[in-house]
Amino acid sequence: MTPTIGVFDSGFGGLTVLRELLHLVPNARYLYLGDTARLPYGSKSRETIVRYALSSARFLQEQGAELLVIACNTATALALEELQAALPIPVIGVVDPGTRAAARACPPATNGEQAGILVLATQATVESHAYARSCQSVGLHATEKACPLLVPLVEEGWVPNHSEADTSVVTSQVLRIYLREALEHMPSARAVLLGCTHYPLLRQAIERTLTDLQHPVPVIDSAEATAEAVASQLAASANYGHATAAGCEFFATDSVEKFARLGTRFLGQPVKDVHLIDLGG
Amino acid sequence: MTPTIGVFDSGFGGLTVLRELLHLVPNARYLYLGDTARLPYGSKSRETIVRYALSSARFLQEQGAELLVIACNTATALALEELQAALPIPVIGVVDPGTRAAARACPPATNGEQAGILVLATQATVESHAYARSCQSVGLHATEKACPLLVPLVEEGWVPNHSEADTSVVTSQVLRIYLREALEHMPSARAVLLGCTHYPLLRQAIERTLTDLQHPVPVIDSAEATAEAVASQLAASANYGHATAAGCEFFATDSVEKFARLGTRFLGQPVKDVHLIDLGG
Repeated sequence: MTPTIGVFDSGFGGLTVLRELLHLVPNARYLYLGDTARLPYGSKSRETIVRYALSSARFLQEQGAELLVIACNTATALALEELQAALPIPVIGVVDPGTRAAARACPPATNGEQAGILVLATQATVESHAYARSCQSVGLHATEKACPLLVPLVEEGWVPNHSEADTSVVTSQVLRIYLREALEHMPSARAVLLGCTHYPLLRQAIERTLTDLQHPVPVIDSAEATAEAVASQLAASANYGHATAAGCEFFATDSVEKFARLGTRFLGQPVKDVHLIDLGG
Repeated sequence: MTPTIGVFDSGFGGLTVLRELLHLVPNARYLYLGDTARLPYGSKSRETIVRYALSSARFLQEQGAELLVIACNTATALALEELQAALPIPVIGVVDPGTRAAARACPPATNGEQAGILVLATQATVESHAYARSCQSVGLHATEKACPLLVPLVEEGWVPNHSEADTSVVTSQVLRIYLREALEHMPSARAVLLGCTHYPLLRQAIERTLTDLQHPVPVIDSAEATAEAVASQLAASANYGHATAAGCEFFATDSVEKFARLGTRFLGQPVKDVHLIDLGG
């Protein structure tokens, strides 16, 4: 039987998680919801984020999702427990898979000292300290750094490439400011964890900036680790032994044209068949 | 009798309009609503913006507003007509007052040729072409330029001052990129009109960038002109001849703490007594 997997994000960033899911768990039917009329979540309060996440998650369950992936760090950090309590289906977030990936990359020092990692995330995710708690549980010490400009820079398409475009220079400077501030708080950081699903589009620029700052450490994102967590969950359900690929369906709460256009950049393949829905916002 | 004036914005930018209103029309009671749970409007579709603006405007009318100021360029550009049709009270937007101020600053050339002005605004405002139409009606020719990064930069507090801080350098570079692109389309621009209520916080930086680009023209914002339009509307109502100042009350749809903190920067005086409301989003 083919499982139906709901994937939810405030906007487009969760498509970087869907991309890994399509690679690692191709034999499923995917329902992706971007709550684009109410994005961004990252600058808003816990109460508002919980309310938005609950209505989005319920919509996907009503559409038939048997497993829900919260492909949004902010919604995971602020609302995972509420979502798990409210829904009768398994709910998997991106925070714990990300920190497990970081733990694999940074084993404890031989003297038993905890490795320190740097988590880049939205304001709301940082203020929740969800990553600090999750890291602690796997023996890592985390410094959390809010990077509010990275999401708008990615959405504006000012993603540095190897050219010397002025727009690339701006994003590189913003990264330099954020990373330098963060490394001042944790000069011994052994890895950088991307705590927002927009940031994988800046991975190479972040790696270059770390090298420029003479701090070349691994950069880890939670998309692949989250896809692995979904695969494990499905493997544990014998029902899904002989599933077949059944494609993706997309839902958005704001302009479907914009979703298809921006989404293609995040998914790495064309986004088609986007349905406009109203969650009452 | 003291008039009650409702002032509405998606967030904080409208406080730059309220600041001018308090200066020019001090003898009124003000109700300010920032729809912070659903901001920003500037990157969203017409349908979503109209829906959000209507619910916000109705709230202020229910609270007793006798005159409504749409202190948000995006909501004015996309929803002014719908708001005027739906509400039984006068509704004043920021677009027409802004273009009238631009027309005063840029009279037609002696050969009768229309003066060209550059309008900086959000993506949604630019796509609506509300400024192009409004400018045309007062004999100006407009080039509209979307500047999506300016709102997040202002909200991050990276506002250039006379210091050489790295953050100031980033914002100056972003302004240089946007203004250079815009001036390539309109090398003869005789003024720059700030078509977003966040941008007055960048006025000096915009003036400096124009000078650097060897294009030092006047920079005009609609806040003062909008306050003048409100004063005229009230003067036309004999009822309000002997009004007394009655203060401001603030409403927000997301965190009241954040509203008070960020709002103080926009209003130029402390923002107190913020009430959290739910518009059902």
